[in-house]
Parts: sequence; C-alpha cells; structure tokens
Amino acid sequence: MDTRARHLLAEYHGCDPGLLDDPVALEALLRAAAEAARVRAVDAQFRRLAPQGVSGVIVIEESHLSIHTWPETGYAAADFFTCGDGLPEAAHALLGPGLRAARAEVLLIERGLPGPGPSLRVART
Amino acid sequence: MDTRARHLLAEYHGCDPGLLDDPVALEALLRAAAEAARVRAVDAQFRRLAPQGVSGVIVIEESHLSIHTWPETGYAAADFFTCGDGLPEAAHALLGPGLRAARAEVLLIERGLPGPGPSLRVART
Repeated sequence: MDTRARHLLAEYHGCDPGLLDDPVALEALLRAAAEAARVRAVDAQFRRLAPQGVSGVIVIEESHLSIHTWPETGYAAADFFTCGDGLPEAAHALLGPGLRAARAEVLLIERGLPGPGPSLRVART
Repeated sequence: MDTRARHLLAEYHGCDPGLLDDPVALEALLRAAAEAARVRAVDAQFRRLAPQGVSGVIVIEESHLSIHTWPETGYAAADFFTCGDGLPEAAHALLGPGLRAARAEVLLIERGLPGPGPSLRVART
C-alpha cells in the first residue's frame, strides 16, 4: 500500500482576533477546508483555551488537519496532512481568506516516501 | 504572548505491525510521550481504520501530538508539535523504541517566530 503523503504547514498572521477565539467558527472553517482538500473527516475536537485561543483537530483517514490560534497576536498555526489524492493546497487556499489573514507562510513536506532514499523531504517553502 | 513553537515530524520504519494496529497500545504510548515532552493532554482521539492502521491525535494546550500508522508496511508518521518549554525530542526518544522501529527520520521545524523575518524555519533535518 502507498504510504506517500503531503504535509503542508501553514502560518497565518494578522488574522481576525474574534474569529481566532471562536471554536465553532473555526471548526466550520476547517471542515470546509477538509472538503476542499477532498478528505473525509472521521473525528473532530475543538476546544477553547483559557484565557483565550483555540486548539482544533480534524482526524481524517490516515492523517489530520489542525489549527492552533493566538487571538492576542492575530496568529494561527495550521497543518494539512493528507495522503493519496488529498489536496492540502486547496485547504490552505480556503483557510487564509477565511481567517482574514494579512500574511501567510507555508512549508510543504513530503512524507512516507518509498526507500531506499529519505522518507521525508522538504518539497517547497 | 510568545507564539514560538517547535514541530518535530518523525517517520518510523520497520515497526512492530501488531502494535501499529492497536489503538489502545498506541494511545498509551503517545500519552507517555506527552509526559516525556512535558506537555498536558487536554483531548485525545484514537481510531482503528479499515482494513487496518490507526489514526490518533492528542490535543495539548496550544498544539498537538499525532500518529498515523500503516501496519502492512511497518510504517508510522508522527508529529510532536509543542509550544514554550515542551520537549518534542523527548517524545521522539520514547516513541522510536516504543514502536520497535528499525529506522527513524526526523525533521524539526520552528514555528510562530517573531517578525520581521520568516515565521517558519527548518531547524534541523
């Protein structure tokens, strides 16, 4: 079975602080991102932290999407880790505008690569 | 507030296939890894997939630990994403032997870095 996967790490700055503190809105946004990435959510956990911020994870088959937010600085760290035909770039394309981010940075990692070479590789910054 | 975090991506090959198909054992192992990393679990989801494999995530305050397994090839992909004083290397040091991995590869990413430079940086391969 093919274990190849792509893991897109995304950083969002200058986001809407109210949105970053709203677990219901963030779960809706991440579920829309999962749909855009063509992956199927099997579990989800979104929790508001004290005094502020949200930690949320959507478990998909064989991988996950996650978001962790800091409303006080307008920053969010997201991961779109997908296998097979999943489209992590499509999740990112939806999430940046969805969070009203002023600036985004991404790093794409290829994982589970077949041997004899490395299993893990930075594909694009 | 400091948003700096470290995200260690770990790949394990040649693992014990029975262990990779056991969500209860994997949750116990990842909870021990969270303790080693000095982070506090706030939520956990571990699920066995059909026909085999496990997807598991432990949400910690402001970040997460995760594992996704392919028993048929002895491969597991793990993430140890920790903020502040968390020790993702300690989680990795525990997980490799815990999975009986013959070979491991890691990539450490620094995230949430203060401006004006990049927010995200490959720290070590």
